[in-house]
Amino acid sequence: MTFQVTILGCSSARPTLARHHTAHVLNVHEQFFLIDCGEGTQYQLLRYGINPLKINAVFISHLHGDHVYGIFGLLSTMAMMGRQRGLTIVAPRPFGEMLGSHFGFFAVELPYPLEIKEVDAREAGVEVWGSRVFTVTTIPLRHRVPCCGYLFREREPGLNVHRHLVEGYGLDPEQIAALKQGRDTCLANGVPLTVAEATYRPYEPRSYAYCSDTTPSGKVADSVRGADLLYHESTYLHQDKALAEKTGHSTALQAARIARKADVRHLVLGHYSARYKTLDPLLEEARTEFSDTILGHDGLVLTVEKDHALKIVQI
Amino acid sequence: MTFQVTILGCSSARPTLARHHTAHVLNVHEQFFLIDCGEGTQYQLLRYGINPLKINAVFISHLHGDHVYGIFGLLSTMAMMGRQRGLTIVAPRPFGEMLGSHFGFFAVELPYPLEIKEVDAREAGVEVWGSRVFTVTTIPLRHRVPCCGYLFREREPGLNVHRHLVEGYGLDPEQIAALKQGRDTCLANGVPLTVAEATYRPYEPRSYAYCSDTTPSGKVADSVRGADLLYHESTYLHQDKALAEKTGHSTALQAARIARKADVRHLVLGHYSARYKTLDPLLEEARTEFSDTILGHDGLVLTVEKDHALKIVQI
Repeated sequence: MTFQVTILGCSSARPTLARHHTAHVLNVHEQFFLIDCGEGTQYQLLRYGINPLKINAVFISHLHGDHVYGIFGLLSTMAMMGRQRGLTIVAPRPFGEMLGSHFGFFAVELPYPLEIKEVDAREAGVEVWGSRVFTVTTIPLRHRVPCCGYLFREREPGLNVHRHLVEGYGLDPEQIAALKQGRDTCLANGVPLTVAEATYRPYEPRSYAYCSDTTPSGKVADSVRGADLLYHESTYLHQDKALAEKTGHSTALQAARIARKADVRHLVLGHYSARYKTLDPLLEEARTEFSDTILGHDGLVLTVEKDHALKIVQI
Repeated sequence: MTFQVTILGCSSARPTLARHHTAHVLNVHEQFFLIDCGEGTQYQLLRYGINPLKINAVFISHLHGDHVYGIFGLLSTMAMMGRQRGLTIVAPRPFGEMLGSHFGFFAVELPYPLEIKEVDAREAGVEVWGSRVFTVTTIPLRHRVPCCGYLFREREPGLNVHRHLVEGYGLDPEQIAALKQGRDTCLANGVPLTVAEATYRPYEPRSYAYCSDTTPSGKVADSVRGADLLYHESTYLHQDKALAEKTGHSTALQAARIARKADVRHLVLGHYSARYKTLDPLLEEARTEFSDTILGHDGLVLTVEKDHALKIVQI
């Protein structure tokens, strides 16, 4: 029942030695998803021990190089590693056309099916991916080009029956199945056993909101309300607010205000400008508005536990 | 009077943790040239302390991703670093069209002039770059797509006058200039002083031949004859010869045979398949044919001294 984000890169457009271009990996119940794919993502996957063949789908926020340039090499490497199972890439238009043109010039023929699912980056809450255990919906971001954030959220899990009742009353499979399906049942002696008293949900749905490149936006706050973990770009310090505005980015303070407004549990910063040699000032600034802020770094692994506690490990 | 190659990446198409995609930097008399530009080249430049703004021109051997995918990000990073001075990229067709299409999709507008010089990868010895101190000519390689190697060679340096003669005879600037221009002169007492006895060349031209992806080819051997340093791909061990043939590559043994045939001074191997965990067997194999073989590695710096001695440093 893992719910874990690994940050592969935390740099904005110009990388530094310690900060690679943007890419995150989300592990939801051992299904792996890549979110954005900056140059060097395949090296970072190697570095942090994540097998590219495990990736089920890729979510691209927008067509700027620092979020995309790793995809060409990664798709080829997956082919060389023997991938046969299909891969879906979710991205704003014209990602499909761009990739098709690229494949033409480089004579790329992938040995596995590739599905491109283009999203409308202006719409909020559109489900772009769904599985038995979780959904992905769109978050409209405000950037210089169409830019889409993604909200990953577990579905409500099925009901479990309290083990002490199963054992105490000697419940049979039929009675257990009824309760799990939300129907009251009867004990052998005719006494009713209700769903309310006999069952529980193993966990409350956990969620991760990914907001790559954006100016501060009320719509973003609305879309990510109550998330366990909000990744919100913080390219600049607030003293460079004018620059943030000009380039369609946010300051750490602005990211923290969105986190507070949206009442999320934790905020993760990232997408730092190369101008900042140390990142502590960005963290300090954000924490004046929102204390549960964490500095994203290459190799940071954030696990949201079943009880919603956050475990932080730097690898 | 530097003549130095730095290997930024030595991997073939599928990289490993220790081996990045192909890119070399050549420093000729403090003019810097990038040769091929695999994904992650801009990180490797950072890692090895080479300022991208110093690069005068880029030479691309062919349109396979492991030799090209780093160019998109590098061009943008140069822009962000404030590059204003022009950059030339030498590459086989249709590099220009490919880059133009790419720029269109990503709305790239570089603030510096970019000149694309397309070369015919089938022709040998065509000068594609020239400066006062050196020339670059084509080496036709044999690969699955048009593929061009490059021979970097210093021009014959000007004549110097022996210092002990300048001092001993008290030569004046006019006499020195005549000798440097290859004209005999006379001493004050009327005794002739010939160019042959009074002058010397400070060094013999040094050369570096770059052969990225190729099956073994007699034409390559002809083109690189007598080079100080031949970089020749050695993707496979000779036991995997059939695979090399099928994919348009060479084995270490075949690379060494070309080196011997071409009578070069030193052979550098590279472009290794990810299947080989250790590279010593490739080196051993090559040395059975050509003893002056060196294993290329990420971060290996090869300096050809003025006396043609080779200095090897791993950074």
